[in-house]
Parts: sequence; structure tokens; C-alpha cells
Amino acid sequence: MKQKIDPWESFEIKDYDKIMKDFGVEKVDLKRLLKKNIYFTKGLVFGHKDIQKVLEAKKKKKPFAMMTGLMPSGRFHLGHKVIADLMIYFQELGAECYVAVADIESYLTRDISLEEARKVAIEEYLANYVALGLDLKKTKFYFQSSGSKGYMNLSKFVSKKTNFNELKSIYGDLTPEKVTSVFTQVADILHPQLLENGGPKPVVVPVGIDQLSHINLTRDIANRMKEFNFILPSATFIKIIPGLKGGKMSSSNPNSAIFLGDSPKEVERKIKKYAFSGGQATIEEHRKKGGNPDIDVSFQYLKMFFEPDDDKLKQIEEDYKSGKLLTGELKQYLIDKINKFLVAHQKKKEQAKKILNKFIVKD
Amino acid sequence: MKQKIDPWESFEIKDYDKIMKDFGVEKVDLKRLLKKNIYFTKGLVFGHKDIQKVLEAKKKKKPFAMMTGLMPSGRFHLGHKVIADLMIYFQELGAECYVAVADIESYLTRDISLEEARKVAIEEYLANYVALGLDLKKTKFYFQSSGSKGYMNLSKFVSKKTNFNELKSIYGDLTPEKVTSVFTQVADILHPQLLENGGPKPVVVPVGIDQLSHINLTRDIANRMKEFNFILPSATFIKIIPGLKGGKMSSSNPNSAIFLGDSPKEVERKIKKYAFSGGQATIEEHRKKGGNPDIDVSFQYLKMFFEPDDDKLKQIEEDYKSGKLLTGELKQYLIDKINKFLVAHQKKKEQAKKILNKFIVKD
Repeated sequence: MKQKIDPWESFEIKDYDKIMKDFGVEKVDLKRLLKKNIYFTKGLVFGHKDIQKVLEAKKKKKPFAMMTGLMPSGRFHLGHKVIADLMIYFQELGAECYVAVADIESYLTRDISLEEARKVAIEEYLANYVALGLDLKKTKFYFQSSGSKGYMNLSKFVSKKTNFNELKSIYGDLTPEKVTSVFTQVADILHPQLLENGGPKPVVVPVGIDQLSHINLTRDIANRMKEFNFILPSATFIKIIPGLKGGKMSSSNPNSAIFLGDSPKEVERKIKKYAFSGGQATIEEHRKKGGNPDIDVSFQYLKMFFEPDDDKLKQIEEDYKSGKLLTGELKQYLIDKINKFLVAHQKKKEQAKKILNKFIVKD
Repeated sequence: MKQKIDPWESFEIKDYDKIMKDFGVEKVDLKRLLKKNIYFTKGLVFGHKDIQKVLEAKKKKKPFAMMTGLMPSGRFHLGHKVIADLMIYFQELGAECYVAVADIESYLTRDISLEEARKVAIEEYLANYVALGLDLKKTKFYFQSSGSKGYMNLSKFVSKKTNFNELKSIYGDLTPEKVTSVFTQVADILHPQLLENGGPKPVVVPVGIDQLSHINLTRDIANRMKEFNFILPSATFIKIIPGLKGGKMSSSNPNSAIFLGDSPKEVERKIKKYAFSGGQATIEEHRKKGGNPDIDVSFQYLKMFFEPDDDKLKQIEEDYKSGKLLTGELKQYLIDKINKFLVAHQKKKEQAKKILNKFIVKD
């Protein structure tokens, strides 16, 4: 049986290979990537759809775009950073960048006012994007509530190209506001291809695997909107970012996440208290049996985010497995790495805030 | 049992009093009308909701508005003329006028392109409105596809204030494009009260009785959108305009309708051939038994549209009942009246066309 992937429900993935087979997700061919990226090489980006369209456009010096959206609620955590880094990766590859603030969706489905959404989007998300390296001058940052007429109309036109059975099979129980949100999201992904934005072109959407069904729906709808000549959008899929205690990293569960605004003390407290350990119950036992890095969240964070040096990582892995490296030592190594990054990042973020407003599209 | 009123289905009304009772429609108090109008006095406008809000605003010299929409498909017939005359009635009373071209809806539900909708709206509807006396300088004529951001967003916000059970009870089987159309229509009716349009004010919507459920839904949604402080919109309800053969007058059935672009010959042909008669089968029988004006479409058209002189009308009615006036004579009388009106109207329409383009809101 296919695992159901509902973009509105949290879920755990047990078998990514099965997901890839069931949902037509392809493996990334690392040799074909035009520019190396740690998320691809370490497998955090585990699959894609039609990424070759983007790479071919790049080779042929034809226009291509990157599109993503942000939900302006909660604080910016490591999971958001992965998406941001991929945005920047594609921007540096030459993509026009479109970033949607999902303020219509956050109003409809989470009761967040447009004003609050605007504040969170700029001060929390956009400031972090810029601090991480996004070039705002080459980015079309917009609010769903302030898009062009072509975009607004597109979000209504898509309603003609689906039906409630299809929507139910993806999103489960429907409400009018969920449906309106979905249509708006579909327009977000497709509107970089409107004539007002230069017409059809390859567009890549870096998303979490939880958005897979939404990407598929958007591709199906794009295919049915013959009059627009859309190229089916491409996507790269990211594995679920584990929370400190396992499960999914989520803003709504602060002890599951490392936020990019966390203080050094806060990071220390959360890693020491919550980071799920693959070590043994006592030091003696650990020295004897060693730890299991595959289920150890601290080791996984080092591997995925904070230790780019493969040799060092390998040494840590071996030392942990052998029992030479204790859980407390592994955690401290991670804490130091995270805090070194965060202190530098937070400085950049404060600088970013100062220059933000002039790049924002006003109503 | 309540009669179901589905705005997307044609239906016949057998008992207007029951409709009024079941759906909370009030009788028009003719003494309170600030300006006489034949449609009110003859009962073609048979009921209203909250019309007193508009009349009070007029008395107190406070702003009020008239809002209506047009479906840019098919040709302009006598039924459309009734709505147009009421628009003009409210405009002359002092209402700001909002006229929506339902081009999003006609694209979604009837597959009419925006370009085609634009052409039909201007050349067929707007030209007739102006010829009938609508003052374009005092009218905000707009296309659903070209509304302001506030209007576009409103059409999404309304999705938060209803549910699919409510929508199903009104519109029957739903499709995503129907739902999108409904939300857009609700925004059409409510947007004259947005701050960008001067804020909350009484708004009257002159509609056919087939739109009653839609008015009720819009009022319920307006009531739930507390943050906007909407005044519940008012409406006047028009009886179903009978087609020549009975049933409903409809563009999609050309032999049911008198179009305002019909030639004298065409009018003569349709009335003679199709107008349902309350007369007897033979002249002899008619002379003896007389005709029944209550079911005679020609007489009804004279009464509602083409014979404003009550004394003359009364004479015709008596002569028809007594058998003195034959069906052929009654029809000829109507044909002459219609053609006299149409010839003059068509001249005005040609003049109107010339001045139209400069008043149209461009994309």
C-alpha cells in the first residue's frame, strides 16, 4: 500500500525508497549536478522530479527559476535553514528567485492577520534568508495578498482544472479555506511562468517530502492548463528533519527544534536535555558496547549540518561506535559547533534587518 | 416544504407569497419609496430585504450604493433591461453604482475567455446600460479579473466564513470552480464596503428571485466577517420574467426572449409565432368566451413593460376579457409598442458605443 502523504499532517517516513517508487521520485545523479552541495552529497536531498530541466536550462544559458514559499508563523529553525540554503544554491546557479509569503494561507488556516504575517515574514524569515546569503536584489519576494492580477486570477483559474475527489485524496477532509489555500499555492508555483514573468521556463521548488503530493497536484494541474503552455515544475525533496527527541522538527514544539535565534545557553540546555542519544545508559556500558550514531540525533545534526569535514566526521563516528567518544562529549562538540555558527549568524541577521525594508514590495 | 432556490438552476415560482414567508423576504411598502417606479408599483419587484437601510441613508444624506453583476454571455433581453432600469433607478436616487462583469465566473463555469467576456460586456451590456440611461461617470464598472487587491483578497477571505454543507444546501453538487465563483460573487457584493471604497454603507443589490439564496449566503457571511463591520447588504427581488412561450426568458433559448437588438421583423415573427396566448382557439369562440389576460404573455408584457398608461391597459384588459379584442390585435398592439421602443433604443445604443471606451477601467 502507498503511504499517504498529507501536506497538512505531520508524519514519519520509514522507507524513502518506497516513497520514491510509489510517487515517481527520482534519485539525484550527483555526477550531473553542476555545483556540489552538501545536502545533495549527504543525501538530505534524497530525490527529485525533473531537476534535469533546470540543469539543462543552465547549460544552455536559458532562463530558469527557483520558487518557494514560507508560512509566516513560528520561529526560523534548522529545517527552514535547509530550504534557505537550497534557495541560495539555486540562486547562485543562476535561477530567478520567487519567494511567496503565504499570508493568505496563514490567515485562512491559522488565523494569523496579514499584519502579523508581514512582520514575522520580514523580521524572522527574510532577515534569516539574507543573513544566510540570499541576494534580495535578485529575488522576487512577495506576499500572497499582494500578488499581481495575473497571479490572483491564476489562483482562481486552477479551480477549473481539478475536482473534489482529487483534492480529498490528497488533503483528506476539505474545508473551503483549505481549498482556497491550495489553489493559491498552486498559483504560487506556476506564476513564474506567466507571460508577465517572461513566460514558460523550468522552475524548481525545493520542498520537504511532506509537500510531495502538493507538487504532484500542481504538476497535474499545470499539465491540464494547456492554454498557458506551462513546463511541469521540477522539485527537489528533502528528508524530514528530525527533531531533537526524534519525530519532526517543528516550531510549534520548541523543545524539538534549534532555532536560529537561540542563545548559546538555550542551545546547550536543549541539546543536553532533549537530543535523543544512541549512547548507552552508563559510561561503563558505553565504553564497553559503544554508541549507535545512526539513531543519535546529535551525530545526525553534525553529519547533516555542522561538520562539513568528512574525515573528522568519520573519526567521530568510529570513536562513538567504539565507545571512545561519550555521549556528553559528542553533545558538547555539537553544542560548540552550533553556537559558533549561531553567534556569527545572529550578527549577520541584525545587519540584514537594517537593509530589509527598501527591498520589500509594498502594497 | 421550502422550495429550493438554486441560483444555477432555472426554476418556476408558483407561489411568491410562500417564497417571501419561507425566505424572509419583505413586501415593498410603496408609501415609503422615495421615488416612484413602475416595476415596484406593478409588482414586478415583489419583495426586498432591508431596503429601508438604503432609503434611510438617502433621507439622511449619507452614502449608499447599488451593486449588480452581469454574466457576459448571450444577448441583452427584456429581463436584463429590468435590472438595468433598476440600476438607473437607484443611481438617480443617489447611489454610487458598482457593476461587476463576471468574467472569472463565465470563464470558470461557461468556458468563455476573458477577451470574449470583455467584448460582450462592453458591446452588448454596457452599451445597452448607457442607452437606457446609466451614467457611466457615476458608475464603477469593473471586471472580476481586474479588481483591486482588497477585492481579490476579500474573495479568498470569505472562504473562511462558510463550510461545504452550507454551500451544498444552496448550490447542490459543488465543483471547485463553482465554489470559486461563489466566493468571487460574495466579494463583488461586499467590496463596496471596503475601506478603499469608503467603508461600511448600505448597498442594495437588484436581483432576480433566482439569486435569493445567494443574497442570503452573502448576508450570512457578511455577518460573520466581524473585522470588516459590514452592513448586511440589501436586495430587491424581481419576479421571473416569463419567456414568450412561458417558462423563463433566457438568452440560451432565443425564441423565448425579446432581445434589445432584435429587428422589427424579428419581433413580429417571435410574438406572432411564440407568444403564449390566453385567447380562444377560433375567432368565433374568442368573441363568445373572451380571452384570459392573466396567462397571456403579450398582455403581461404590455402590463409590465410597454403600456405605462393604466387607463389604456385597463381598457385592453376588459376588451380582451370580453372578446372584443382578438389575440392577433393584442399581439399587433404589443409588436408596435416594442418596435417603437427598440428603434429609438437601438439608435441610442449606437451613439453609446462611440463614447464607451474612455470610461472603461483598463487592466
